[in-house]
Amino acid sequence: MEYAIFLRQHIEDIVALTDEEFQTILPYYSPVEVNKKELLIEAGQIITSEFLVVKGCLKAFTEDELGKEYIIQFAMENWWISDYPALVKETKGNVCVQALEDCFVLELSFEDRKKMCEAVPKMYIFHGEKAFSGYVALQKRVLSMMKNSAKEKYELLLHQYPALFQRVSKTMIAQYLGVSRETLSRLTKK
Amino acid sequence: MEYAIFLRQHIEDIVALTDEEFQTILPYYSPVEVNKKELLIEAGQIITSEFLVVKGCLKAFTEDELGKEYIIQFAMENWWISDYPALVKETKGNVCVQALEDCFVLELSFEDRKKMCEAVPKMYIFHGEKAFSGYVALQKRVLSMMKNSAKEKYELLLHQYPALFQRVSKTMIAQYLGVSRETLSRLTKK
Repeated sequence: MEYAIFLRQHIEDIVALTDEEFQTILPYYSPVEVNKKELLIEAGQIITSEFLVVKGCLKAFTEDELGKEYIIQFAMENWWISDYPALVKETKGNVCVQALEDCFVLELSFEDRKKMCEAVPKMYIFHGEKAFSGYVALQKRVLSMMKNSAKEKYELLLHQYPALFQRVSKTMIAQYLGVSRETLSRLTKK
Repeated sequence: MEYAIFLRQHIEDIVALTDEEFQTILPYYSPVEVNKKELLIEAGQIITSEFLVVKGCLKAFTEDELGKEYIIQFAMENWWISDYPALVKETKGNVCVQALEDCFVLELSFEDRKKMCEAVPKMYIFHGEKAFSGYVALQKRVLSMMKNSAKEKYELLLHQYPALFQRVSKTMIAQYLGVSRETLSRLTKK
């Protein structure tokens, strides 16, 4: 189980664990392989889990009635991805999560997350920190969406996540930023 | 200290506390009164605290170079407000928080939040839940900002927070939704 080392490092970036604590939490995570272009989550599915990316890159997206695609989030190594508004209520979602490369992820169900935190209360600290960082990142994104020009939005994303630009297409960057592909091409040519 | 009852209820909506635990956490919160129109946080200030609204209504906003205002969040009773991207790094922010009514809030410093959680670890659960709910709410907002028409954005906000519409002006609703005042007037006349 090579992923055990990855998982322990991922958690210990936030909170140190004893060997015993780590052995308690490890079984809550299930390894899942997803091939490039496959869906990890389909629209309309009841959402009961979130996923930690060990290897690969994915996108969470939705479409409008005209088939226009909106990318809500990307996820690369050490990022978590799910349809969170559906997960929190364990209801049907309207978001798809698709692998953009061959991926290896760890699945953690919402139910198991609760049990694991009760068994090893330090994990409340871990999940609390993750949620807080996610909240702060989304506040920045909302502000950028409201206030910034297409150019500023693009530059902010490039500054925050340079690695992402090596792994996803410009069309997807445009679908994430909410700008047209043409606008993005104009910006990146300069 | 009438606010003690409010605070205990606010926390116990998420996690039950013993009397002793509550007496331990209470001193970490400092009551602050802010008059209508006064600033609780000024742009450029180093941000070290967040605020729980006991009474009143506030907005967090920023302006662009042309003086156009963007509202990042509102806060009413039982909501928390701060410049979170600045708070998390305890650096200077560029967001103002202004009272829209005479307000009574409880200040919790980031430093004290850590100490309090160490003293009463149940508070990790409380803050983790709050952050997670905030994260989920912002995911919904990002999706709505990207995908929805002005009309849909307006209706979603009205559905989620009907009380807000009694307490803030239409201009502010427009500044929060990122639509023009004229568009909003058109929608609300129908």
